[in-house]
Amino acid sequence: MVPQVRKLALMGVGLIGGSFALALRRANLVERVVGVDRDARTLDGALALHLIDEAETELSRAVRGADLVLLAVPVRQMASVMKAVANHMERDALITDVGSTKQSVIADARQHLGAHFERFVPAHPIAGSEKSGVNAARADLFDGRSLIVTPVVETLPLALERIKELWLNCGAQPATLTPLAHDEIFARVSHLPHLMAFALMQQAQHHPKADSLFQLAGASFREVTRLAKSSPELWRDIFLANREAVLSSLDEFQHEFDRLRGALQEDDADKLLHVLNADA
Amino acid sequence: MVPQVRKLALMGVGLIGGSFALALRRANLVERVVGVDRDARTLDGALALHLIDEAETELSRAVRGADLVLLAVPVRQMASVMKAVANHMERDALITDVGSTKQSVIADARQHLGAHFERFVPAHPIAGSEKSGVNAARADLFDGRSLIVTPVVETLPLALERIKELWLNCGAQPATLTPLAHDEIFARVSHLPHLMAFALMQQAQHHPKADSLFQLAGASFREVTRLAKSSPELWRDIFLANREAVLSSLDEFQHEFDRLRGALQEDDADKLLHVLNADA
Repeated sequence: MVPQVRKLALMGVGLIGGSFALALRRANLVERVVGVDRDARTLDGALALHLIDEAETELSRAVRGADLVLLAVPVRQMASVMKAVANHMERDALITDVGSTKQSVIADARQHLGAHFERFVPAHPIAGSEKSGVNAARADLFDGRSLIVTPVVETLPLALERIKELWLNCGAQPATLTPLAHDEIFARVSHLPHLMAFALMQQAQHHPKADSLFQLAGASFREVTRLAKSSPELWRDIFLANREAVLSSLDEFQHEFDRLRGALQEDDADKLLHVLNADA
Repeated sequence: MVPQVRKLALMGVGLIGGSFALALRRANLVERVVGVDRDARTLDGALALHLIDEAETELSRAVRGADLVLLAVPVRQMASVMKAVANHMERDALITDVGSTKQSVIADARQHLGAHFERFVPAHPIAGSEKSGVNAARADLFDGRSLIVTPVVETLPLALERIKELWLNCGAQPATLTPLAHDEIFARVSHLPHLMAFALMQQAQHHPKADSLFQLAGASFREVTRLAKSSPELWRDIFLANREAVLSSLDEFQHEFDRLRGALQEDDADKLLHVLNADA
């Protein structure tokens, strides 16, 4: 039997953090959830939804007595939250995160968590959505989704196992990657597609026929630009936190884009077909 | 009451042509459908589905006695089909198409249809899918979707009205654009997103960690690359047929892409946020 979390300190009450709390409740694996958020309306909403038992604005108070701390704030805010809680956490508390980039969060944790660093389990549930906020939180958000953990040499095996076990009971399927491999992979399968979607949306909005574009767009355009409906702040932070890998992925994309453009420019049907055939 | 089509000659029995036949049948607006396709198995399948009443491999025979000819072949094959049927069509037959580009198809029609050109109604139903082939055809494919007509000065008003009426009864909502506006708009909302998807798919497949990329990709990557599962031949033809507008759209995209890349390269958080804010 999986032991219950006695007190979960939820640092950031949004889609992912909120869904984690709901999924833990669904599995009957948490006694008490204390939510911290800078937005008072978010906390009111989370209380009304019975997603949290207690609202807290003081980071240091929230982590006192907590046996599990979940960092669910945008990646560029991780460092300041870590700094604020490190001196107030319980000596045996586990701490984990849901950040979309891992090397930057690990660097922050190594710098700011002190002795807690060995009980910090870097994690990333693959369950993003263009929706955000606590009202979009769902107990089944992680069902069947991957949960990537990226432990480092200092990470205590027991801490790692406990966090994987909790996520497994939230419906997710844990997988392990190195922090570097994680960041390289998600630069390409997530960060780059989002950046492309933002660029495409910009292009449409800057076009003289913008109204017609949006009115007549079919499924293909809507599906791609749906990604650009995510929060610009959130994605700005992700792009910057994973800057090196994202820049490399942009270069790779540019290379493929130039090959396609070149064949089209040359009006070369055979070459264009060759380049479009992904298996070639 | 809308008069029935006595004989529909369906030139190309795929997703779009097949769905048009099914939608006309649903509306009880067609008596007999003759399908022409270069693939014998497609014709067998269409007969088995009762989507067509008669299979024909000879283009000239198919259009004899037909009061409506639908060109539903890839855009680069339009000219050769037009050439093959022009001398065999009935004197009062209507002819229309479902091509994704309009200026190229109109130029082909003007060159090859002779006296039939005034009864040619250039049209484009906005109901693409990564699915293709007659087995994906559905009577409700066009329900609530736009149907763009791009008449030219020669187009007979009665021919235009009749085609719009038929599509309306197939569930589609007719709208009118100039051929140029159509091609400029769909270069941006359809052709460019597909080209980006092909480039992204190429990039992933060429990556040393390709297996992990595909295994760990979340919804964002799958949604974008779904577009790249469409037929490379079909899209090669569309890109080439709308080459000028597509090249312009690529330049616009490159401009937005470069702005985002520049802000990221400079590690400038304020600038990056400004560029990501599409309304800016």
